[in-house]
Amino acid sequence: MGPAAFDLSLYLVTDSTLLPPGVSLISQVEAAIRGGVTIVQLREKKIDTREFVTLAQSLIPICRSHGVPLLINDRLDVALATGADGVHVGQSDMPVRIVRVPADVKPNVDIVDKVIVALKLIRERTPLVHNITNFVAMNDSANILLHIGGSPIMAHDTNEAAAIVSFCGALVLNIGTLYPPFIEGMKVAAAKASTLSTPIVLDPVGVGATSHRMQTALTLLNDYKVTILRGNGGEIAAIAGQQGAQSRGVDSVGAVESPEKIVQGLAKQKGVVVAMTGKPDYVSDGRRLARVHNKSRYLPMITASGCMVAALTGAFAAVCKDDPFVAAVGALVAMGVASEMAESGHSGPHPLKVNGPGTFRIALFDAISHLDGDTIKRTARVDFEIL
Amino acid sequence: MGPAAFDLSLYLVTDSTLLPPGVSLISQVEAAIRGGVTIVQLREKKIDTREFVTLAQSLIPICRSHGVPLLINDRLDVALATGADGVHVGQSDMPVRIVRVPADVKPNVDIVDKVIVALKLIRERTPLVHNITNFVAMNDSANILLHIGGSPIMAHDTNEAAAIVSFCGALVLNIGTLYPPFIEGMKVAAAKASTLSTPIVLDPVGVGATSHRMQTALTLLNDYKVTILRGNGGEIAAIAGQQGAQSRGVDSVGAVESPEKIVQGLAKQKGVVVAMTGKPDYVSDGRRLARVHNKSRYLPMITASGCMVAALTGAFAAVCKDDPFVAAVGALVAMGVASEMAESGHSGPHPLKVNGPGTFRIALFDAISHLDGDTIKRTARVDFEIL
Amino acid sequence: MGPAAFDLSLYLVTDSTLLPPGVSLISQVEAAIRGGVTIVQLREKKIDTREFVTLAQSLIPICRSHGVPLLINDRLDVALATGADGVHVGQSDMPVRIVRVPADVKPNVDIVDKVIVALKLIRERTPLVHNITNFVAMNDSANILLHIGGSPIMAHDTNEAAAIVSFCGALVLNIGTLYPPFIEGMKVAAAKASTLSTPIVLDPVGVGATSHRMQTALTLLNDYKVTILRGNGGEIAAIAGQQGAQSRGVDSVGAVESPEKIVQGLAKQKGVVVAMTGKPDYVSDGRRLARVHNKSRYLPMITASGCMVAALTGAFAAVCKDDPFVAAVGALVAMGVASEMAESGHSGPHPLKVNGPGTFRIALFDAISHLDGDTIKRTARVDFEIL
Repeated sequence: MGPAAFDLSLYLVTDSTLLPPGVSLISQVEAAIRGGVTIVQLREKKIDTREFVTLAQSLIPICRSHGVPLLINDRLDVALATGADGVHVGQSDMPVRIVRVPADVKPNVDIVDKVIVALKLIRERTPLVHNITNFVAMNDSANILLHIGGSPIMAHDTNEAAAIVSFCGALVLNIGTLYPPFIEGMKVAAAKASTLSTPIVLDPVGVGATSHRMQTALTLLNDYKVTILRGNGGEIAAIAGQQGAQSRGVDSVGAVESPEKIVQGLAKQKGVVVAMTGKPDYVSDGRRLARVHNKSRYLPMITASGCMVAALTGAFAAVCKDDPFVAAVGALVAMGVASEMAESGHSGPHPLKVNGPGTFRIALFDAISHLDGDTIKRTARVDFEIL
Repeated sequence: MGPAAFDLSLYLVTDSTLLPPGVSLISQVEAAIRGGVTIVQLREKKIDTREFVTLAQSLIPICRSHGVPLLINDRLDVALATGADGVHVGQSDMPVRIVRVPADVKPNVDIVDKVIVALKLIRERTPLVHNITNFVAMNDSANILLHIGGSPIMAHDTNEAAAIVSFCGALVLNIGTLYPPFIEGMKVAAAKASTLSTPIVLDPVGVGATSHRMQTALTLLNDYKVTILRGNGGEIAAIAGQQGAQSRGVDSVGAVESPEKIVQGLAKQKGVVVAMTGKPDYVSDGRRLARVHNKSRYLPMITASGCMVAALTGAFAAVCKDDPFVAAVGALVAMGVASEMAESGHSGPHPLKVNGPGTFRIALFDAISHLDGDTIKRTARVDFEIL
Repeated sequence: MGPAAFDLSLYLVTDSTLLPPGVSLISQVEAAIRGGVTIVQLREKKIDTREFVTLAQSLIPICRSHGVPLLINDRLDVALATGADGVHVGQSDMPVRIVRVPADVKPNVDIVDKVIVALKLIRERTPLVHNITNFVAMNDSANILLHIGGSPIMAHDTNEAAAIVSFCGALVLNIGTLYPPFIEGMKVAAAKASTLSTPIVLDPVGVGATSHRMQTALTLLNDYKVTILRGNGGEIAAIAGQQGAQSRGVDSVGAVESPEKIVQGLAKQKGVVVAMTGKPDYVSDGRRLARVHNKSRYLPMITASGCMVAALTGAFAAVCKDDPFVAAVGALVAMGVASEMAESGHSGPHPLKVNGPGTFRIALFDAISHLDGDTIKRTARVDFEIL
């Protein structure tokens, strides 16, 4: 695949040292885009890497919501860390060959197209998703499933957990507020789902915190046909490390620092799709790897945002039974794109102005309901490679 | 009762084929009402029934919030399905006699006046409502009870469930996330409430999904003095069908298609008030029937909306002990009218613009707190008949 | 400390009898402040005390959010009840000596400065707060802890409760939806926290409602090293009265009417800091007493507002281990100031307009995230005295 074609007709090169006092770069860029700018190059020579990354992260949702690409001047590392659309290379900068690598890899049209089809199927089929989840996330999980077009059911009682699984499209297990009766319910439901080949999503919340959580997560992972394992970096690393500790001694520590290797290795070892959320999110089934770069900075400020991704993963898994890798990527793209729509105020006819995590959470619920294929096509930032 | 008197001084007849490009009929009607129109006739000759119903449903909250009646041109079926205020009959249309039937039946002033008095009593007395409900709905139920003027208590532990009932005005039982200790708590609380003649509201969430839920719901219904049974169409039909299956063999399937018969029959058989939510809602105590037509299209998009109606039913039941039929109608009117106020942005001094299910849910909480007798009087659409 | 210096350059004296029809005093005062008024005197000669108090309560958040002091004309009682900034005394009014008393006592700079440092530490250290709380409050508690800068963990299972405590900065116990497995979890966690001297916050929700709750609360209070006891007036009075009943017969009833004595007495008797929320909030450790006057009128209209204060108290306690009195005051100041910011629409770049309890709750979450030292310094109203 060749480099993406950019519309260079009105090209803004930023220079934060020229800003008038009291004016932020972000507001200037937004004003320029409204004025017709077609492409933005973020050029910062004097700030340190962390500041540069933060600045780029702030600009991306603004650019993306207007369909305007953001280039990073010279710094491939910053472009990769933030998922920007490309890197500008001048004569005194890095060699061109390396710089073009990420532009060649993304956006991956095939995987994004598959996600769009999956979203359409959710809206058409209203899949029933059975959740055995934690007390904190129950209400949010039910709402986000309804908003995307699915239908949530919460039922952990062993008297009915298997019966519920039998007519649902997916089963989501979340160990956030672990408790013996819930563990029993999870086992009964997971056994039934394994028998019926109903997809199982496992969210090992806080698995590294106590041995009780680790033991529970490993039991579910090893004894039943878990389809997708979704956790944050610490959680996935803990599971990988635990296994590593048994087989590779102290090497497990080093592995935590290589997210691609962790997700790929764990996916192969367990025969599951692994989805590790972070910046970016990583997904692998052992032979494919995707990075999803869409993410609002507000997502980590609200509770249950990871649990909601797991719930959405259930909805996607119910309509992508033949390819759970697409399901995992789809849920992350849906949450990531919707979170950027919410933050930037580009969703629906009367977008709620985000003023903090409270309004963001409400705007996110609205955005999930407005999510559509066109928006995903225009704004999804997914790297994809065959391993 | 004769037909309602309409103010015909400025009469808008819509014609969507004359709209300028890019302008919606809804925005045109709203602008016309703001301009002084006193009555609206929706006239659509070329769209199919489903589109016609959808369009009427969109216009009703707008008209209602301004106190402007909406008539449907010619189509009695559309008027009945949507609860519009009347039907316009021209020379080439249906015979006049039939058309006037719904206009003769509603609005029922008596029942609406009773609902208004009940709301006033809730505000004056702040009734304590004891809820043993599901994990998903607990927070929302507590908030909506506070917002309407009641006081929520959640307590399922058998060590205190009876003690709590003894000083509460109503008991709400909801089987949404069934679990043995909750069932035990429900039984202890229901036994105490039966002894004290404290009203019991039963919400059989998902009762048709598993035999465990059905058995639990029937135990509560048969062994204790349940006052009001509130469920959606599927849930009420399942309970009626289950009973029917025992006594009428396979006939139960047919019965599901006659909502009036189901609610009336089940009310008589069990000696309870049955409230079946849907479009419209049906309420019967066996000798009376009410249909409540108020409902925002967003209500089915948020979780726990039915559970919240059950919680509100508890508040109304606590102040309408002599007539639980009024209590059931009152909760449905309160939720229905508030949901229309929220959707149309006519509630309080700074109404939140609804942009999807997230903002709708917040606007609904505000609207419940602003609900008053005048608004109910002006906008409630209730059919009432003695059976 | 002498009386606070006021900027008298543009002094507004209200007179509601001169208002044009349809204009509220509140909107007039707000307009005047925007026009440059530096101090406001509320002067009402003809309304009764309750109306006067209500009016002053409405004006305080508006004045405070602009840094403009509010004086009450003549009525020391109204000033004390509402926490206004001072009293205006004319020639025909009360003697000057008495009037100056509250001005001499507040604002207490030292305690407020300590609160500001504590908030800064929360933001820097992101303390982990372990919550064993009720089902209604779990989601709200987790969100508010994230929004202020802490990190919530919910875990009640005896298999892991102690392990979780061992790496957390504070433990919050809330008996709102009591249940044997939760009580067992609380005991295990409290035992571990007592051993490690991890601060324990106890929220005895509804403790006066049943003997089961009272017994549970007293067990936790007497058998473990509870650091801060936080409840509303009825709850704290019930615990004090229960103890009083054992030692002082029927006298306990009288004690309920003296909030200062109750909090001081209970603090001494149990060796804990007692925080009693109300209007105002009272905090004592037995030798010091603080009154926190900041509070939006919407706070009592949302569920779990007290539970959220308890959660915030955990975050403050985690960074104020040497002085839990400051932690208790800090959480009340944070909630009180943020609630006034939310109500008056002065928080962040795009404040959500509050239109009722639904929007207030969302604005409150935003405001907690925007809370800073400057705002606290400018608007906190805390009385402080050494007993």
